[in-house]
Amino acid sequence: MSKQKPLILVVNDDGVTAPGIRNLIRLMKEVGDVVVVAPDGPQSGMGHAITLDSTLHVERVHIDKGDQMEYACSGTPVDCVKLAINKLLPRKPDLCVSGINHGSNSSINVLYSGTMSAAVEGAIEGIPSIGFSLLDHSHDADFPHCDRFVTEIVVQVLEKGLPKGVSLNVNIPKLSDSKIKGVKVCRQANGNWEEEFDERVSPQGKTYYWLTGKFVNYDKGEDTDIWALEHNYVSIVPVQFDVTAHDAIKQLNSWNNG
Amino acid sequence: MSKQKPLILVVNDDGVTAPGIRNLIRLMKEVGDVVVVAPDGPQSGMGHAITLDSTLHVERVHIDKGDQMEYACSGTPVDCVKLAINKLLPRKPDLCVSGINHGSNSSINVLYSGTMSAAVEGAIEGIPSIGFSLLDHSHDADFPHCDRFVTEIVVQVLEKGLPKGVSLNVNIPKLSDSKIKGVKVCRQANGNWEEEFDERVSPQGKTYYWLTGKFVNYDKGEDTDIWALEHNYVSIVPVQFDVTAHDAIKQLNSWNNG
Repeated sequence: MSKQKPLILVVNDDGVTAPGIRNLIRLMKEVGDVVVVAPDGPQSGMGHAITLDSTLHVERVHIDKGDQMEYACSGTPVDCVKLAINKLLPRKPDLCVSGINHGSNSSINVLYSGTMSAAVEGAIEGIPSIGFSLLDHSHDADFPHCDRFVTEIVVQVLEKGLPKGVSLNVNIPKLSDSKIKGVKVCRQANGNWEEEFDERVSPQGKTYYWLTGKFVNYDKGEDTDIWALEHNYVSIVPVQFDVTAHDAIKQLNSWNNG
Repeated sequence: MSKQKPLILVVNDDGVTAPGIRNLIRLMKEVGDVVVVAPDGPQSGMGHAITLDSTLHVERVHIDKGDQMEYACSGTPVDCVKLAINKLLPRKPDLCVSGINHGSNSSINVLYSGTMSAAVEGAIEGIPSIGFSLLDHSHDADFPHCDRFVTEIVVQVLEKGLPKGVSLNVNIPKLSDSKIKGVKVCRQANGNWEEEFDERVSPQGKTYYWLTGKFVNYDKGEDTDIWALEHNYVSIVPVQFDVTAHDAIKQLNSWNNG
């Protein structure tokens, strides 16, 4: 019986004890056999970083009850996926889910996000992969209101697969389940952070900085993830790892004749 | 006079003292006014990571002769670009160049590369940006053989600009200048690392891992960066930060009707 269940790899970037991943594990146990390989501490903003010049440490952990296998890893979210697939899992998983992230990964945040980079790494390895994020940074965010959407999307992906090389960036509004209007497939909004560096002086007299900033959406389109989220929809952006600007190739080739 | 020169931001991921960036600085001083903001140590494989949960430290450094301003930063390559643009530079630069990286950033490596993520961050900020890499990992790689190609590409970009949102991923073969056949505009080859984790035991008896692996090119196309490099061309891949898989949107929308 158990052998017919899908094997699901669960990862995140907030660390293995974060409420977001604990909720995702709870949901995935209803759907399949779960193996968790997640960072042993916060790895937010790590993007697609990997550990090249240092060692990786992994430990079996037992956090919640249940028969899921769980590992805490000293590396980045992408390290976790690589280590899971190449070392820790008994076979290639049927699905890789990442999150649920504490905070939005819409628009340009997809690039900085360890949550989404883990999902993209899953796609690179040929595994249907989904990153989930809730638009609430707080530790005690109301994750159970995501349940219905997470489960529905996971079941659809397991049933229908995903286009080759594509992972999903799913963002869920900070609203009660009943107020969410539905799910929209979107493109990544053109937005960016307008940063300010908070300049301070250490007790030793040295200047240092904290990165701060405010996200600005430059995109008026109604087909974007930001639009969907602002209008109380769950947004799904299909994400690819081929970052070639194909349309620019012709334009650049004309330089030679210029 | 000096005010008419372009302002060029130079960054990398191998650290401010690496021979690759020293060569790039030397070349850029011929073209414009140079400000260097580079990591104070190696940051290879950092991808698009940013420092969210920690402080950033910056120090003026004087490494080579000349009137370029140089800063060593404790953060990632992307941190360096953000800090340069928002805090350290007198105005928005006319160009951002990253590298010259010690080793290839072709194919999927564009995602892991701190060098390329710095260039992509420049593009996000609306600055024409180029990442340069030489296919030679060694510390004493022959960087001067890149001179002609780096300068030609930089001059073209300053003159003609780049398409909106596009940065360039330039890789240069490990060959003498005279053996290089020319420059090709390419798409990112579909390749990946087949990883193995080297498992060891610490003196304390704990298991740990080193990431190792071998790059495999699955792509037979003759329009890819890998093909160009294997055939002794410099490869240029235009890179975008919109990672939406636009073609997949329609397919995913059909789910609702399925």
